[in-house]
Parts: sequence; C-alpha cells; structure tokens
Amino acid sequence: MCRWAAYLGDEVYLEEIVTAPCHSLIAQSHSAQEAKTSTNGDGFGLAWYGERREPGLYRDILPAWSDPNLKSLCRQIRSGLFLAHVRAATDGATSRANCHPFVQGPWSFMHNGQIGEFDRLRRHLESGLSDAGYEALQGTTDSELFFLLMVEAGLDGDPLGATRRAVAAVKDAAAKAGIDPMIRLTAAFSDGERLHAVRYATDDQAPTLYTAPFGGGIGRCLVSEPFDRACADWQAIPPGSFITATRSSMIVQRFDAAPATPDLLPQRLRSV
Amino acid sequence: MCRWAAYLGDEVYLEEIVTAPCHSLIAQSHSAQEAKTSTNGDGFGLAWYGERREPGLYRDILPAWSDPNLKSLCRQIRSGLFLAHVRAATDGATSRANCHPFVQGPWSFMHNGQIGEFDRLRRHLESGLSDAGYEALQGTTDSELFFLLMVEAGLDGDPLGATRRAVAAVKDAAAKAGIDPMIRLTAAFSDGERLHAVRYATDDQAPTLYTAPFGGGIGRCLVSEPFDRACADWQAIPPGSFITATRSSMIVQRFDAAPATPDLLPQRLRSV
Amino acid sequence: MCRWAAYLGDEVYLEEIVTAPCHSLIAQSHSAQEAKTSTNGDGFGLAWYGERREPGLYRDILPAWSDPNLKSLCRQIRSGLFLAHVRAATDGATSRANCHPFVQGPWSFMHNGQIGEFDRLRRHLESGLSDAGYEALQGTTDSELFFLLMVEAGLDGDPLGATRRAVAAVKDAAAKAGIDPMIRLTAAFSDGERLHAVRYATDDQAPTLYTAPFGGGIGRCLVSEPFDRACADWQAIPPGSFITATRSSMIVQRFDAAPATPDLLPQRLRSV
Amino acid sequence: MCRWAAYLGDEVYLEEIVTAPCHSLIAQSHSAQEAKTSTNGDGFGLAWYGERREPGLYRDILPAWSDPNLKSLCRQIRSGLFLAHVRAATDGATSRANCHPFVQGPWSFMHNGQIGEFDRLRRHLESGLSDAGYEALQGTTDSELFFLLMVEAGLDGDPLGATRRAVAAVKDAAAKAGIDPMIRLTAAFSDGERLHAVRYATDDQAPTLYTAPFGGGIGRCLVSEPFDRACADWQAIPPGSFITATRSSMIVQRFDAAPATPDLLPQRLRSV
Repeated sequence: MCRWAAYLGDEVYLEEIVTAPCHSLIAQSHSAQEAKTSTNGDGFGLAWYGERREPGLYRDILPAWSDPNLKSLCRQIRSGLFLAHVRAATDGATSRANCHPFVQGPWSFMHNGQIGEFDRLRRHLESGLSDAGYEALQGTTDSELFFLLMVEAGLDGDPLGATRRAVAAVKDAAAKAGIDPMIRLTAAFSDGERLHAVRYATDDQAPTLYTAPFGGGIGRCLVSEPFDRACADWQAIPPGSFITATRSSMIVQRFDAAPATPDLLPQRLRSV
Repeated sequence: MCRWAAYLGDEVYLEEIVTAPCHSLIAQSHSAQEAKTSTNGDGFGLAWYGERREPGLYRDILPAWSDPNLKSLCRQIRSGLFLAHVRAATDGATSRANCHPFVQGPWSFMHNGQIGEFDRLRRHLESGLSDAGYEALQGTTDSELFFLLMVEAGLDGDPLGATRRAVAAVKDAAAKAGIDPMIRLTAAFSDGERLHAVRYATDDQAPTLYTAPFGGGIGRCLVSEPFDRACADWQAIPPGSFITATRSSMIVQRFDAAPATPDLLPQRLRSV
Repeated sequence: MCRWAAYLGDEVYLEEIVTAPCHSLIAQSHSAQEAKTSTNGDGFGLAWYGERREPGLYRDILPAWSDPNLKSLCRQIRSGLFLAHVRAATDGATSRANCHPFVQGPWSFMHNGQIGEFDRLRRHLESGLSDAGYEALQGTTDSELFFLLMVEAGLDGDPLGATRRAVAAVKDAAAKAGIDPMIRLTAAFSDGERLHAVRYATDDQAPTLYTAPFGGGIGRCLVSEPFDRACADWQAIPPGSFITATRSSMIVQRFDAAPATPDLLPQRLRSV
Repeated sequence: MCRWAAYLGDEVYLEEIVTAPCHSLIAQSHSAQEAKTSTNGDGFGLAWYGERREPGLYRDILPAWSDPNLKSLCRQIRSGLFLAHVRAATDGATSRANCHPFVQGPWSFMHNGQIGEFDRLRRHLESGLSDAGYEALQGTTDSELFFLLMVEAGLDGDPLGATRRAVAAVKDAAAKAGIDPMIRLTAAFSDGERLHAVRYATDDQAPTLYTAPFGGGIGRCLVSEPFDRACADWQAIPPGSFITATRSSMIVQRFDAAPATPDLLPQRLRSV
C-alpha cells in the first residue's frame, strides 16, 4: 500500500503539499495513518506539468524522507497540476522503474492498491499489449501494467471507459487462470488538462480516497490520506467512484466494472 | 535511535542473525519494538571478521529491507565475529559515510543512542582529535566522532578506560559550552578478537541491550533488541554495564563516567 | 561493450584480480583498451561460489571505480570460482537488474557483446520462455534473456549444446522478423563446478577473449582483456571457441551455430 | 578535473545547454576533450534560480549520462540563470555532499581545479572558518571549503576581493605548512543576480574557461569547455581573469592573488 497526493489549480510550489503540511506526503512516507503499512519507504516519485505537453518526472528509490533533492525540487518548482507518490512495495523490486508515477506521452499515472495473484496473471496480461505497449514496459509492477492496459484501452478519448476496460481485462485474465479476481484500485492520472481519480475494489477493501479544496482559489487536492486534518475540509470519496476534475469543476461518476457499454451506462453525475 | 546485533562464536552464516529470524535485524529495520522510532530505514551496515586483521565493511543508504545485495551477502558469508546495524538518523544526513559500523584499523564500532546538543559540541570535540584522527573522519555523526575519541583515548590497550575517557571528553565539552551533558550510549565494538558492548546514559534512558547464547555452541549475541523472543534465553543488561566477550567467557563490569583511575576502579566482575 | 574476468582455481582473494593488478577490472572500468568504449561505468557485479551451491551476488549501478563496498568485499572474500563484470550499457537502462552477472539456481552468467536489433526480437524471444523463465526475468537486457534461453535449452546437462541452441533461437527470431541475424557473444558462465566461456560472432567482430594461468598453482583466468600484460602468459582464444575449464584441465571446443545435432557434431577437442 | 557550464540570460530550458548540444555537458561527462581526464562520471549537479532568492539544487552520484531524472528535469525546467557540473573526483569520495554546485543562502558555486596537497592544508583552513561556516561544511572537497572561505571573506559585497582573499588564505596555509602553494581554479558562482567566473592558477596550468553568446538574445554561457564548436562564437578567457556578467554586460577584470587592497587595485576593465 502506498500514499499519494494530486493537485489541480493555480500554480503552487510543490512543497505546499509534498513537504510542508504537518501530515504531508513526506510525513506519510514515515508514518501513514490509514494504510495497511505505516512505512512507505520504497521510493517515491513526482510528475508535474509545466509548459510542455508531457510532464517532468522525478523518481528515486530512497525513502522520500531522506532525499534532499526532493526537498529542494519541491521548494523550487511551481505547478498547477502534479502527482506525487510514496511507495510501499507489494509487487516488484525497489527500483526506479517500479516507482510511481508512470508516464506515457502526456499521461501520468499513480496508484495505491493491488491486483490479486498478479504473478499468475502478469504474463497473460502482458501478452494482450500491443508491441508498442510491450516495449513501453520498464518495470515489473502491477500498477505500471494496469496503466499501459488503460492507455491501450483508449485512455486518450475515454478515461472512464478505458479504466473500466482495463479492470475487465484483469478480471478476464483471472477467470482464464481459474483465480477469483481481486482488484483494489485507488489511482490518480492526468493528461495535463484534467485530473482523474478512481476508487474501486472487487471486495469491500477499496483503499481510501479524499478530496478537499486547496490554496484559497480554484485549487483542489485528491489524496489517499488527508495531509492536514485541521485545516482543510476533506471529503471522503465512496468506493465505486470515478472523478474528473478540471480547473472549474469536479464530476464524480459511478464506477463499476460492468462491461463497458458507454452509451447505456447509468452515470450518476454530481458536481461537488 | 537505531537497532544493531553483534555475534561472537563459531562461524555462522550472517543470515542466521541478520535476515532469517522472525524478528531479525532486517525485520527490525521495518518495525522495531523497543526503539523510539519503529522505522530504521536510513541505511545499514555490516562489519565482519574473516582471515584478515581488519574487517570487511558493507554499508549502503537504502533501507536494509530492500537491498538484495545485503540478503545475498548474508546468505553467503560466514563469520565468527560480526557487527550489523540498521540506522534511524538523528544527527547527520543519510549517506554511506554516516552509516554504522565505522572502522579504524582492526576496530569496528556501532552505536544506538545520541549525544545531546551535538551540533554545539562537535567542533570542540573535533579539535581534540589528532591530525590522523581528524583526517580519518568521513561523516558527520556523533557516533563516528565518539568512536574516534575512543580510539585516541587508548582503545587498543584499554577498551573500558578509553570508553570512559571518551564519555568524559564529551562531558567536558558540554561543561565548557555551558550545556547539561546528555549522553545515551549503547554501543558494540571489536578488534577482531574480543567483542565489547557498553550500556550507559547520563539520565535514566539508556537504550536497551540484551544478550543470549546463540547457535548451540559457544556463540553469543549482543543486541539492542531480541530478534527472536520465543527461541532464545535473552538477558537484559542493566544500565551502567561494560561487556567483554571472548570465545570462552563474558565479563560484565560496572561502567560509570567517573574520572578514569583504573587501579582504584571498583569493578564488579561477573561471569555469565 | 563491457569488460569481465572469471577465475577458477585455488581460493584467492577477489582483489587479486578485481582491484589489485595494474590493469585490473576496476582499472578497465575507467580505461579499457580493447573495447569499443573505454569507459565501463554503468554498474558492475560479482558472483562468487563459496560453501553453498548457489553463488553470492553483489551488483550495483555506480561505476566500479567509486564503490568502497566493492573494494572492501574484494579485499575480504576468498573464492575458488568467481565472475566479475563492469558494464557499458548498450541495451537496457542503468539498473541493478541489468547488471551482470545474472544468476539462476547454481548458474551464473556474464556477457560482453550484443544481439543486433534486440528491440525488434525481444518480445518474440521472451514468448519462447516457459512461465518459470518468464517470471525469472528481472531486467531488460539482451544478455539476461540470452542466459535464460540457455537455461531453458538445457544448460544443466549440455552447456555447449544449450549455448548453440540459444544462438539458434536468436537467429530464428531474426529470420522471422526479416532481420539479418547479428550476434556478438563473449560470455562466461558457471554452475559452481566448471567454468565455461564462449567466443562467437555472426560477423568477424567477435569480442576478444583471453586466458592465462593465475596464482602459481592450478588457477586460471578467463578475461575479455588481459589485466596485467607484463606478468602473465595471456593466450588469445580464437573466435568460434567454447571453453570448459575444471580445476584440472581446460578444453577448447569449436563453437559454431550449426543446428544442434549433438551426436553428429564434429568437435575439435584440444587440451590447452 | 571536472567540466561545468553556466548560463545567464533569457529563460531557456536547461536541456538546451546540459543535454541537447552535440558536445553537451552530458556528452562531456563521457568524453571531455580538454580535461586531464576524459571521463567525468563521479556525480553531477544543477543549481538553478527561479522565483526564490536561493537556487534549487539537484545532485547525485551517478554518472550524468545515466540519470533519467536529470534528463527529465533539464527538459522541464526553464531558468535564466543556472550552473551545471559533472565531476571527476580528485579529493573527496563520491557522495552527494561532494558534488558541485555547493549552495549557501543565495550563493551557488562550482569548480574545476584543485588545491595542491589539500590533505595537509584542510584542517588549518577549516580552523579559520567561523562556527557557522564550520557547521555549513557537508562534504570533504577542497572546492566546498574554498567556497566557504570565499563566503566568509565577504563574497556578498565584494566577489572579486573575496575570491582573492580566499586564494591568499590557501597560500598562507601552505606557507605555514611549508608547502609550495599550488592552486588551479576555474570556478563559476552566482548570487542569483550576477554570474561570476574566475580563471587562475599559481602555475601555468589554469584550467580552461570559455564564453559565448547563447540563445540569440542577451544570453551568455561560461563553460570549462565549448559544448558546440560549430555553432557558437567561443572566446577563450585568459588565465588571471575574473568575470562579472549581468543581463546587460560582461566585465573581465585582471585577477591575481596580490594582497587585496581594493582601492589601489589596477583593474583592466573591458566590456566584451
């Protein structure tokens, strides 16, 4: 289980979320409160959007709490859209290629959760990738592979549908392998314009997801765990939710793993 | 606060202490039970004696739990005398030079504890080193400096006296700086023949120290925290103790910081 | 192009080959003389056999010349059979999983050379692995994949045949992809008993391979580049050679990539 | 000997100097042409100025050529004033604390060169630092210590005088130690407003220094070695020069190590 925080809004220094708050993401790397493991010391990563279409990416395998580069970068870089992650390894060794966020073109993605019995599903899932997707794989985590499945399932034009189809692909693979499918998925991802998040699980253990306004203006955070309980109006997002945030609105749609038939999909749209 | 384990006896694979027990040192790097901080993820180190007079040294800044090299080395290397340490940084950045054990000639040293207000004492203490001692300093921890003070205070011929004189040097420096001296010291050190340990504090917070026979034969462990409560006969060492273990005996002497007048010293000698 | 050195014989300290000679492997990491690139700074690795059946493994991504751990390990560890490697990356990022040697069970393997257009062959070659082989893949180099192909082609019972079949598998994959096959292969590998090496290329650019007696007794080195021209009687091994060294003999067999029909195979056996 | 590049002008992406040119700083990390050692693989660093008074700092011990973070940061970050450095270690281990640039408050500093017999001078020079300067020392290089001497010699108000006084302090220390003073110094430093560089040596081996306009507008580079001979109008700066560049001008003053008597100083001022 990992911890992550994402932000969309007016430009802020990354440190305002990553390092400064009393229960900042870096504090959570040392002592998370709502995760299965309190220590998230198996690397970290940042993806932030600036003037280019693709994000900057900074990942390393040290614990976030001990990296002076991370502190300096977060103090110096301002961004209106970024993802930050601290890792507690479940599948995959401690290596940079296994640190979140993962990036493909303009998309960045980070995750807290797991795919059950991934070792037995991995080869089948990888065989479903296109050659380009297969070559794009750099590490060995379930998260990176799930992200590439989403990309190939049409993330560019239909983020919700692509996420649903990636979940379906995992369930199919499990069925073929004679395994009860188990997915726990609390992920955030962005194309540099919109910020999405999903909270979903096949059981009742969907990892937590919260949101709060941030920074006084139009800013908004999506986090796996509130970083400052005292000062912000955190709202828990229920399981089975898919979020699309822009600079002017946030939409929460119902997310289930039913076969993706977009035009028939009963979507409970809600402005927050 | 850190965690450490030392062993003297018949040759064993390092893994039998470092990685294999249920509450092994590596397990303690993730979730120590008797330390102020449960996570000891700021690097680790091994010093082991083989056929040479000086020990081998392996230190890195990753958390011990995520280093595959450490696991392989501990699985492959056998030694009859070794020190192993996992670090939770108090003074000094996360760098290899700040990881324990420290080595000088045949001596190795590792520590759990701290010198109070070390930032204000450091320069004065360093100025007391010989040129050779000054050049030998590689990092910025209170532990390495204390070790070098011990070396210069005659560690080679008089381990107990040298330790006492190093404690006295710290107290003197504090007095000169107008600081109430505070030292908490639970350290292990060896010259490749004997294994020493000390438990001492100026207050009632001396970090824990335990010992137990290990391995069926003449082997003995000294540890900051038992690594396997169920299976070994752990004995807590009281504060104010200085231990000298050889392959045939273990002596516990009283350790206080009175001016070192060895021939007058009331030593309660005890075989264990 | 990388540099490597392997040793079989009486136990010696690793440093006698890896760090001490004037043109030691570590010196070669900085300024190799017979390689396409003089700098081999993209990581290093050691596999050494001791009392267990499987070797110890130590790999890191720093340049070999700047790692104090490597120096200490080589100074402390004695072994009668080991492989050491410094890397100049061609395929695959700088990561521990991409550092040689690679290990599977009792086998260790390291390589200098390349598979032409590996990016276009990789997926096809990986699809030929068993599930176990596929799961064993940790990195993204052509070398690791070639080693796993050898393992699956019967390395345990028939090292020469398995190597030949792995070469054939690469050629088949190239043919299917419409690529002129290009393989340059100077590799060493061991099961803890015998030390093998192969020098082969589909063109006239087979990377160099040398051997010399070492250490006065029965010891023998196999290297990609002599580490001490003045003091040893280095012999160049011609392209198209397969070497099997034991503690009492060294056999050089002709190695070509003809279809592996072992019982018909014309082998020119030669004692050296 | 190291390689470095500094820029002052309109904001550019760091990659335009650090990674993109054919003989970019990263290319020089692999194969410098005018340095004593062609490989500069012992770490690297960036200091760049943005909206804050103090610079951002990113340093690591990998070779610059193999760090994907460096590539991404240089592609994403724009700055109108930055320093970039690749290191070939002379004094001091390979550690982050020994990587250039060094930063104190608003000042950043990087260096190519050396202080002769620094091991014998270090302690005396360190004893001349104030307590604050002593505490600020993080590593063990001559370069960092020289920078701190400059800071204490009045870098804030009088950059040229402070540099001259720091050189004098080194010469004094050498004289006291009975050593012929040897300094080779090609350094760049900045307070976030001006960019300074100095080229000086006690012998005729002052490391090279070049400058060229860059980027079409008011931009200017100062480098230890031209990164693109074909496309820019590089001008060699003679030994004994001190440069002060602003966004509108560049002044070259004569730099010698005469006792600093600023009001009598014969300064050959020259606009370039």
